[in-house]
Amino acid sequence: MTDPVLYIGNKNYSSWSFRPWIGMRTAGIAFEEKLVPFDMGAGNPAFKAFSPTGKVPVLVDGDVTIWESLAILDHVARRHPEAGLWPENLNDRSKAMAMSSEMVSSFSALRSACPMNMRRERKPIETTPAILADVARIQSLWSGCLENSGGPFLFGAFSIADAMFAPVVNRLDVYAFETGPVVTDYMARMKALPAWREWEAAGRAEPWVVAEDEA
Amino acid sequence: MTDPVLYIGNKNYSSWSFRPWIGMRTAGIAFEEKLVPFDMGAGNPAFKAFSPTGKVPVLVDGDVTIWESLAILDHVARRHPEAGLWPENLNDRSKAMAMSSEMVSSFSALRSACPMNMRRERKPIETTPAILADVARIQSLWSGCLENSGGPFLFGAFSIADAMFAPVVNRLDVYAFETGPVVTDYMARMKALPAWREWEAAGRAEPWVVAEDEA
Ligand SMILES: N[C@@H](CCC(=O)N[C@@H](CS)C(=O)NCC(=O)O)C(=O)O
Ligand SMILES: N[C@@H](CCC(=O)N[C@@H](CS)C(=O)NCC(=O)O)C(=O)O
Repeated sequence: MTDPVLYIGNKNYSSWSFRPWIGMRTAGIAFEEKLVPFDMGAGNPAFKAFSPTGKVPVLVDGDVTIWESLAILDHVARRHPEAGLWPENLNDRSKAMAMSSEMVSSFSALRSACPMNMRRERKPIETTPAILADVARIQSLWSGCLENSGGPFLFGAFSIADAMFAPVVNRLDVYAFETGPVVTDYMARMKALPAWREWEAAGRAEPWVVAEDEA
Repeated sequence: MTDPVLYIGNKNYSSWSFRPWIGMRTAGIAFEEKLVPFDMGAGNPAFKAFSPTGKVPVLVDGDVTIWESLAILDHVARRHPEAGLWPENLNDRSKAMAMSSEMVSSFSALRSACPMNMRRERKPIETTPAILADVARIQSLWSGCLENSGGPFLFGAFSIADAMFAPVVNRLDVYAFETGPVVTDYMARMKALPAWREWEAAGRAEPWVVAEDEA
């Protein structure tokens, strides 16, 4: 069996690519990475050659092609049950899936005003009630989980829920949102993960600047 | 064990509620239904009493509360493996999850211009390139699956993928989009499901009219 291939966009900006990448890397699941940089803005017509939606990330695992970050993570979790990517406890697992699906469906105010940006200097942005509501909901989700589990990650051990929210850790950090101590400490632990540091260093070293993602 | 409780919105309009409802009903999973109608528009401050996001659907199963339609379906699929809610074949299962997640993340043009409406008389709507692109992507997804599986449903037996796209079957129907024969036949089979008919009849009989969902 050859390793699966994970197609990703720019490490500095591609929040959806970061999710399966940090999840698989932290779980120790081997994969080959193919980085295809955005063309202009956050996309590239060349993505169509390998991606059924024209978006990244995409995982090619033998004869199956999986798109959507959450589906990629769920796929590798099933292929590698020993990696423990979903929380073991069944109720926790259902909550982790609910949070991950909420990440996919929601937080559009925060996502559009505050693009993930590994290179950005920590600096506040002009906020709106919708952005602040997104940030409040996220902090309440995270602190609820952390108080329940005792940490270090949302459900104790690192899981798909942490991977799905990783780009939001960057956003709360670089756009300098106020965070309570439980959330601040959680963010510090996420940023200290070897996989986080590896991705961040690579993103910062990239030559490409996407103007519309520089908020 | 008492049956789980599924909170839903109006059957005529609540597309996200329809997904877990038709999935559980078709799979024969018992649940108690609590319908809380929208107040004005597609929401209700009263949802906050039982829903962590203020949205429906929500499933309360013993001591765990699950939000997000996809997470509810995944939760009941794990509680009832005998119901076969996910395709048995592992690659099919990963594709079903990718399609379901794409449903959650995408098709915003179709979703906002063409609200699910069980009562609507079949009649075309003014389209845009974005709406037509959504419809084309959906038809290509469905026909690819149906050609692979041979039907009757996307992955052969009824699965979570069918449940997640059920409201789109209604949309392509009542807004009179042109569909190829494979897709038209699939839609007819979906609309003939006993669970579909039960939901549709109840939706049509509801007294509430939500003006903003009457496109
Ligand atoms: N829901 C998708 C989102 C994927 C997505 O939007 N990816 C962006 C890059 S982070 C992209 O490829 N955009 C290109 C485009 O929209 O044309 C997922 O979870 O993977
Ligand atoms: N991503 C959610 C979407 C839920 C959703 O948007 N539900 C609508 C009704 S169909 C709702 O409750 N809207 C109320 C609101 O947004 O205030 C899911 O999959 O369950």
